[in-house]
Amino acid sequence: MISPNDATAASEPRSVADVFPGSRRVYVSGTLHPNLRVPLREVDLAETKHPNGRIEVNEPVRIYDTSGPWGDPAFSGDVTQGLPALRRDWILARGDVAEYEGRAVKPEDNGYISEEHASRYNEKKARHNRLKEYPGLTRKPLRASAGHPVTQMWYAKQGIITPEMEYIAIRENLGREAAFQAATDREGPRNLLHHQHPGQPFGAKIPDYITPEFVRDEVARGRAIIPANVNHPESEPMIIGRNFLVKINANIGNSAVASTIDEEVEKLQWSTLWGADTVMDLSTGKNIHATREWIIRNSPVPIGTVPIYQALEKVNGRVEDLCWEVFRDTLIEQAEQGVDYFTIHAGVLLRFVPLTATRMTGIVSRGGSIMAKWCLSHHKENFLYTHWSDICDIMAQYDVSFSIGDGLRPGSIADANDAAQFGELEVQGELNTTAWEKGVQVMNEGPGHVPMHLIEENMQKQIEWCHEAPFYTLGPLTTDVAPGYDHITSGIGAAMIGWYGCAMLCYVTPKEHLGLPNREDVRDGVVTYKIAAHAADLAKGHPAAQIRDNALSKARFEFRWEDQFNLSLDPTKARSFHDKTLPQDGAKTAHFCSMCGPTFCSMKITEEVREYAEKLGLEESEALEQGMAEKAKEFAEKGAEIYS
Amino acid sequence: MISPNDATAASEPRSVADVFPGSRRVYVSGTLHPNLRVPLREVDLAETKHPNGRIEVNEPVRIYDTSGPWGDPAFSGDVTQGLPALRRDWILARGDVAEYEGRAVKPEDNGYISEEHASRYNEKKARHNRLKEYPGLTRKPLRASAGHPVTQMWYAKQGIITPEMEYIAIRENLGREAAFQAATDREGPRNLLHHQHPGQPFGAKIPDYITPEFVRDEVARGRAIIPANVNHPESEPMIIGRNFLVKINANIGNSAVASTIDEEVEKLQWSTLWGADTVMDLSTGKNIHATREWIIRNSPVPIGTVPIYQALEKVNGRVEDLCWEVFRDTLIEQAEQGVDYFTIHAGVLLRFVPLTATRMTGIVSRGGSIMAKWCLSHHKENFLYTHWSDICDIMAQYDVSFSIGDGLRPGSIADANDAAQFGELEVQGELNTTAWEKGVQVMNEGPGHVPMHLIEENMQKQIEWCHEAPFYTLGPLTTDVAPGYDHITSGIGAAMIGWYGCAMLCYVTPKEHLGLPNREDVRDGVVTYKIAAHAADLAKGHPAAQIRDNALSKARFEFRWEDQFNLSLDPTKARSFHDKTLPQDGAKTAHFCSMCGPTFCSMKITEEVREYAEKLGLEESEALEQGMAEKAKEFAEKGAEIYS
Repeated sequence: MISPNDATAASEPRSVADVFPGSRRVYVSGTLHPNLRVPLREVDLAETKHPNGRIEVNEPVRIYDTSGPWGDPAFSGDVTQGLPALRRDWILARGDVAEYEGRAVKPEDNGYISEEHASRYNEKKARHNRLKEYPGLTRKPLRASAGHPVTQMWYAKQGIITPEMEYIAIRENLGREAAFQAATDREGPRNLLHHQHPGQPFGAKIPDYITPEFVRDEVARGRAIIPANVNHPESEPMIIGRNFLVKINANIGNSAVASTIDEEVEKLQWSTLWGADTVMDLSTGKNIHATREWIIRNSPVPIGTVPIYQALEKVNGRVEDLCWEVFRDTLIEQAEQGVDYFTIHAGVLLRFVPLTATRMTGIVSRGGSIMAKWCLSHHKENFLYTHWSDICDIMAQYDVSFSIGDGLRPGSIADANDAAQFGELEVQGELNTTAWEKGVQVMNEGPGHVPMHLIEENMQKQIEWCHEAPFYTLGPLTTDVAPGYDHITSGIGAAMIGWYGCAMLCYVTPKEHLGLPNREDVRDGVVTYKIAAHAADLAKGHPAAQIRDNALSKARFEFRWEDQFNLSLDPTKARSFHDKTLPQDGAKTAHFCSMCGPTFCSMKITEEVREYAEKLGLEESEALEQGMAEKAKEFAEKGAEIYS
Repeated sequence: MISPNDATAASEPRSVADVFPGSRRVYVSGTLHPNLRVPLREVDLAETKHPNGRIEVNEPVRIYDTSGPWGDPAFSGDVTQGLPALRRDWILARGDVAEYEGRAVKPEDNGYISEEHASRYNEKKARHNRLKEYPGLTRKPLRASAGHPVTQMWYAKQGIITPEMEYIAIRENLGREAAFQAATDREGPRNLLHHQHPGQPFGAKIPDYITPEFVRDEVARGRAIIPANVNHPESEPMIIGRNFLVKINANIGNSAVASTIDEEVEKLQWSTLWGADTVMDLSTGKNIHATREWIIRNSPVPIGTVPIYQALEKVNGRVEDLCWEVFRDTLIEQAEQGVDYFTIHAGVLLRFVPLTATRMTGIVSRGGSIMAKWCLSHHKENFLYTHWSDICDIMAQYDVSFSIGDGLRPGSIADANDAAQFGELEVQGELNTTAWEKGVQVMNEGPGHVPMHLIEENMQKQIEWCHEAPFYTLGPLTTDVAPGYDHITSGIGAAMIGWYGCAMLCYVTPKEHLGLPNREDVRDGVVTYKIAAHAADLAKGHPAAQIRDNALSKARFEFRWEDQFNLSLDPTKARSFHDKTLPQDGAKTAHFCSMCGPTFCSMKITEEVREYAEKLGLEESEALEQGMAEKAKEFAEKGAEIYS
């Protein structure tokens, strides 16, 4: 949930051209499916002028782009019309879905007793909420019609490479063929990727180049998911799995502090502009259905929800009154709208609930506490668990993916890795197996609050117990002492678990535990999580990840200030920080920075070192290095003696 | 270097009462040295009112306090007088130092040709710089007079427990005896520290309770240092070593953007108020000597410098003109003033320089590039290396500690862990051995820019090659793609290397690579590094670290909002974030937060769970847990079969 824009945010850049100057939208086409147009953002770089007069061309750098058509200046869309239905033809061409009338929208879907109640409630804010203006879902919903699941997993198991899979392969390679070639073409011994090796401790198998077949294989074996509801054809295919780029999720949703629908759509655009790979709509209260409709129709990224939130609204917030029928109806309602993944807390079993009583912070997950309360009220097993097979059958008909909730995740350092948490994780593994048998894609949600030395155990157990399904964690926060900075306490844990193999990281904003994030907080949260995800991609050895670091480092070293800004995760902020100290335009082309000033510069000295090394000749330089290597060996032997 | 205050910073809180409301300064006395008064900050907590009417007292939490007398509201000091000479009597009581005339301050110490030049230069800013007003060092300098080093290491080796060592032992325990007792007194199975175990991979030996004897032993074997120049008696003893709390350093120093001396003193107070354990004065340009004098006389924390910066000013910035005599004179000048540790780039050897030619970003350390250029200009070995023994003799007479510089640290992800970097690290190890033979305390500086999977190798090699001397790293930054957020890219690496065993972390502000930090940036940098250090303390199993997390988590869970704010690293920010969403005073005592609102709250549900578990009886609850444990075992066995 994001609070309404405040004064600070009003002056913020809003369009892609404001936020990412010096770059262009480009499209790459497919081979198996030649009509594919996979969007990337390309940053153009200036030439390097060497002191000896030589001019070096710096190839443009391509960047993964989640902003969708909204990030293409050539696109002239309108939120009241929604995005073009990119995947519609692919879905229909498979010939295994059919349109049907669908469920009629009821007043209680939006939290009203009757149509009249709804009109009365919304009359005064009608101008802002525009509930009536929006055309809504003019298409009829689709669902499976050929007697088999219509999931990407099912196709993958049949050996079919869908357009979605090829789209993803192109996207994951980051337009690498061109940039990679440029890098290896460079003269000299510098090797762009010389430090890279597989860093993931749990047997990662990231190939040098992502092929559509590799995508298919990972989806077939359940190691990756493609959240892609047949009723959300507006989404641009993306993949979540540990042998791909680490993804991040941003949460939005209306709240008690009545934000309008327009604001929710703007939050969606804002978070995907900065790089959110999926967005969860966590709306509560009134107009949940209508808000979600606007969000899905305008979203280029998969949308996730927690259906129990809406189900609870339908029973007026009385947990005891929740039942399978209301929940099932809500699942169908949301599946018809096009939600791509559902968080379902089916692992919160009755027998785990008492285990939380002695915790420092009990149950902190909203969904987890709803289900715990339900179990206690009825002294029965969680109905989401007992109806798991029925739920799978619904998901399979629309290709909604599971994100099995971690309702008993620790809410403090003290509660990390305890019996309740791991008990639920083990049950998640059982649920995965059933989902796969039904052809449904699945990932597992994880903590939460975990000190650094206990993070690896979470990943290792999830891989083992959940049979390598993708892991999707919130942080984890590595300490509880810094409210106001929890994007940082959790960014540390997120980067680490991403390296260990976590496939998607749910962002945390600076307002976590304290209040509702505004635009600035969302920007801080998304950028911090892009840092965590990228640091993890570097460490786990993603073959294309380091290209951007290298291009930025080279620009920095060569005082190409504009390139340094434009290649960064947040060009506007980088530029404004530079300009606070050296506002003159000349300073952005000057061969010095504000740290040492114009009379002394360590980078200048390095140029002299290079000239020296050139004079010295590579031969002598290598001889020196050789001598040192021998010395190092000798020293290590001596050292071994000291400690023996 | 910090830029002059800007408009944003003007409204910031400045005093300890503004920054840390709801807490008090307390002092703990010694046992071996009963006159010791060790400062801590104590946060008072409200009672817990349980739903059944029971009242639970929450013990106050004691926090390590680096703000010195400036953080004691009872202290009425004045920056023109400097701080009281806390350690003066301890130093004199050892009977092994003598006053002497000392070196006369020369115009070139402050960057002037003559006294007249200095007056002319400073006339216009005299009012701000107050060069004349400050009384300066009215004491004569001290140095060794008994024919042996006057270092804490020398005393430690003789079996002497100095007052400094006992002071540190008390400080490192964080007033734990009381709080620990309160925790274990609590009824029920909750164990405050039940997850803690030694997390450090390299054989850490943090005892349950830090004794003065443990401090002595760690210093004697070189595994920790106490930076404590006999001419800086104003400093409050602190220790840097991997079996103690992880420390952080903040950099200040005047710059070309002529900040005044008053501003530098304010930066010192500001950074230590937020928690900087040491401060490095990286001043360049004019008035270096005078600025340093003001800083040291007003500093409760050890001060570090890079003497080659001032030496370079004395030869008018001409690197070729640097020589041993100018450098030696600068060392003595600074040792007499009271600098506690010197960064000296003695490991930048001639043979390593060509190894940097093929790097992505060459040499990025200022000291490193100065020495590389000197080596190349003269085609001679680094004079800091050839004069190492002479330098040690000077350090031993004042107890200045070494912080051996890493002049060839990587400046980008691409250059991490390369031959130049590790070559220098190996030489640092040789230099350590010589320093120890001379009785001088020493730590080693480290990188820089390192992707996550290469961080551990840095720590492991440093421990092995440098014989367990403390490691002091800058970050490391785990990616290069986020200028403007490098406190975060580096905070990730800092937390990790702190866990692995790094003893001190040099902070990075959001302005790194871009401009000069202002007050807000310093606050962001220090708080981010306090997070990294504390996350590392938790992970490496420091026995007292988790007390604060637990107290804050408990306060959060019980909706004691004021306690939650007051226990946090930045109470002002936490409170303001909360108030942006719920500004009413009532909201700070309300049993709900802005995320879920008053009608639904997961924490409320947990209270019901606890009641349920109580009714159920501990017996049945344990039976359930037992049953689950058996099931887990059975599953693991089954799982093992699946993978066999």
